[in-house]
Amino acid sequence: MLANMTEARFRTTRLEAFSDGVLAVIITIMVLELKVPREDGLRGLLSIAPILFVYLLSFSFTAIYWVNHHHLVRRVEECDHRVLYANLSFLFAASLLPFFTNYVIEKHSDSFSVALYAASMIFTAFCFFLLRLAIERLLKQSGDLRHEDMATQHKHIASLVLYVAAIPLAHFHPYIALGAITLVTVIWIIPTATVERCADDASR
Amino acid sequence: MLANMTEARFRTTRLEAFSDGVLAVIITIMVLELKVPREDGLRGLLSIAPILFVYLLSFSFTAIYWVNHHHLVRRVEECDHRVLYANLSFLFAASLLPFFTNYVIEKHSDSFSVALYAASMIFTAFCFFLLRLAIERLLKQSGDLRHEDMATQHKHIASLVLYVAAIPLAHFHPYIALGAITLVTVIWIIPTATVERCADDASR
Amino acid sequence: MLANMTEARFRTTRLEAFSDGVLAVIITIMVLELKVPREDGLRGLLSIAPILFVYLLSFSFTAIYWVNHHHLVRRVEECDHRVLYANLSFLFAASLLPFFTNYVIEKHSDSFSVALYAASMIFTAFCFFLLRLAIERLLKQSGDLRHEDMATQHKHIASLVLYVAAIPLAHFHPYIALGAITLVTVIWIIPTATVERCADDASR
Amino acid sequence: MLANMTEARFRTTRLEAFSDGVLAVIITIMVLELKVPREDGLRGLLSIAPILFVYLLSFSFTAIYWVNHHHLVRRVEECDHRVLYANLSFLFAASLLPFFTNYVIEKHSDSFSVALYAASMIFTAFCFFLLRLAIERLLKQSGDLRHEDMATQHKHIASLVLYVAAIPLAHFHPYIALGAITLVTVIWIIPTATVERCADDASR
Repeated sequence: MLANMTEARFRTTRLEAFSDGVLAVIITIMVLELKVPREDGLRGLLSIAPILFVYLLSFSFTAIYWVNHHHLVRRVEECDHRVLYANLSFLFAASLLPFFTNYVIEKHSDSFSVALYAASMIFTAFCFFLLRLAIERLLKQSGDLRHEDMATQHKHIASLVLYVAAIPLAHFHPYIALGAITLVTVIWIIPTATVERCADDASR
Repeated sequence: MLANMTEARFRTTRLEAFSDGVLAVIITIMVLELKVPREDGLRGLLSIAPILFVYLLSFSFTAIYWVNHHHLVRRVEECDHRVLYANLSFLFAASLLPFFTNYVIEKHSDSFSVALYAASMIFTAFCFFLLRLAIERLLKQSGDLRHEDMATQHKHIASLVLYVAAIPLAHFHPYIALGAITLVTVIWIIPTATVERCADDASR
Repeated sequence: MLANMTEARFRTTRLEAFSDGVLAVIITIMVLELKVPREDGLRGLLSIAPILFVYLLSFSFTAIYWVNHHHLVRRVEECDHRVLYANLSFLFAASLLPFFTNYVIEKHSDSFSVALYAASMIFTAFCFFLLRLAIERLLKQSGDLRHEDMATQHKHIASLVLYVAAIPLAHFHPYIALGAITLVTVIWIIPTATVERCADDASR
Repeated sequence: MLANMTEARFRTTRLEAFSDGVLAVIITIMVLELKVPREDGLRGLLSIAPILFVYLLSFSFTAIYWVNHHHLVRRVEECDHRVLYANLSFLFAASLLPFFTNYVIEKHSDSFSVALYAASMIFTAFCFFLLRLAIERLLKQSGDLRHEDMATQHKHIASLVLYVAAIPLAHFHPYIALGAITLVTVIWIIPTATVERCADDASR
């Protein structure tokens, strides 16, 4: 039966390579949405500052997921079809981000487009959650499941709360909703550095 | 002669890497075809719902081929020029999908564009079949050919029947033809999960 | 000195990975140039048939270079800066192909655009020749240079003659010039199969 | 603690693969900005010569960073979050290049766009410097830091001086500013070859 089990399973190396490829294209083609302003000089540049900010936000979002994806997938060496399809659904959700980024840009960050943007991020988070479940299921089968890092779990919950809050917020104050989404990015980047510094101190 | 044989053959690792790259770009650039609707709010989003659906269909199609490609290519470690060129013809066929997806979108799923879409899928299936033949030829030479998984073979035949049926169907009912194409996607994703669950049960 | 030599050298794995990535993007983004015709039905499809043909030509050209690149680079495991920059110049030349493909398409295969297309192919061939020289220099240093396969050398010369002939030909008969370019593609694909069949026969 | 440290660290292989993917897409999608001129014949080609030159400049800039990135990252086998996020910020800066390249092209190399172009290159250089610091910090921790190659350090300083000088220069003479940027590219490609030739001579 073992040979058959191995047969039904994939090495995660090619899954990682494909995911890296798709995320690399996603993160880069968003730059194609940036249009050169008609106005010359500094005025023109300032007029597209909000667009550059949204681009930075989408770039950070994808980059953070790439880091988290890496952390998650390297816990297994082989995967089943459940993981494969969960991963593909995650990539599908992530591939919609350039479109919804463009939506926010073209609609000048109006309430509906910002709500859609937040909703697309929640959809990506949900698909990533499915991928996490599928991988933890595999780890449970092989008895390798460890208690997940609490700091990471708290971050996932805080992110979800902020994304979900961003949708009604967008109705009244689209820019504050964008601020909430930005906060998620900051949560993921800053505390990690802190945690790591602590770890460094502890290891001395 | 052995050195010469090895010389004429490729390791499949770089073939896999290149195929992954091409499929990753194909699956992602399709999102560039999604245009933000002019109308604001929910109305605008609903107006592009059919387009999002076609995007999902093309994404799933490519994703399923990526999974099947992985299953097929990992059966060999080295390949000859026949496999190489069959693989390149498969990638060529797959690379046309974003164009024919765009065709369906811009022509608002009219009969001809849906028939073309189905025809492009049949062309991809045919090139993938050539790749399968080229790889099985290699396996036969080295005496490693096993009987192909019956379930997979049935799925290939069912897919082909549905794609071929979609062409005349598109003439009368383009949406039903799109439904047939969707059904293929469902066949590939759902039963795999079932089969695997069975395998799990059997292995206990 | 050895450590220093090693220091100055690159493993070719990352060079291959980067080249694969660039060639995968080049070969795929060309599909973005294909525009859905305004006319409905078969008429519309026929009106873009020449465009699809040029796309096929550019795809084959890039695919053949990918195969040749693979054959060339795998002969060394490490490379110096000369190889690195020769490879980057080759990738630069190859990256212009989507532009000159688009040139031919938008200018409806007029004499000048077809001549440019052939010139861009010669430029790519020239940069690839530099890469070959840089790699053979390395092989000579390590004493690993073997006599190059004669069949391949003949193909390279025939390709160059046809590309160079295509430029003046394009002035009078752009379609015949495109035919000459097509012939190069055929030369690369067909005889390889023949040679390999012979090799198979010989090895029995 | 060791297991925990390993847990917090990444193998650089996937970081390299992702960076290669992003840089490959960046370097290639710039070709999409090249527009076929309206004028036919040689006149049309000459009218876009400055655009092709800017494309060559941006391609070389990205290519040189890819080479430097390779040299830098291969010095470590594992990395921490600091390196990860420094690398992502570098990729973000690099991903803006196609946009600012397009800016220069669409604004016909006016003072402001050329200054922006130089500023974007300084931003990329700054992020790359952060990546260098993060990696040297790791090497210091493991006691593997060697004195950096002096030639390379001089090149980094010369590049920075030229980029910073290009901004005020662009105000008066945009083309001379572009010349300064071109000079940086030449500095990186030519002397490397020289240095290597010297190394070859020395090793005899």
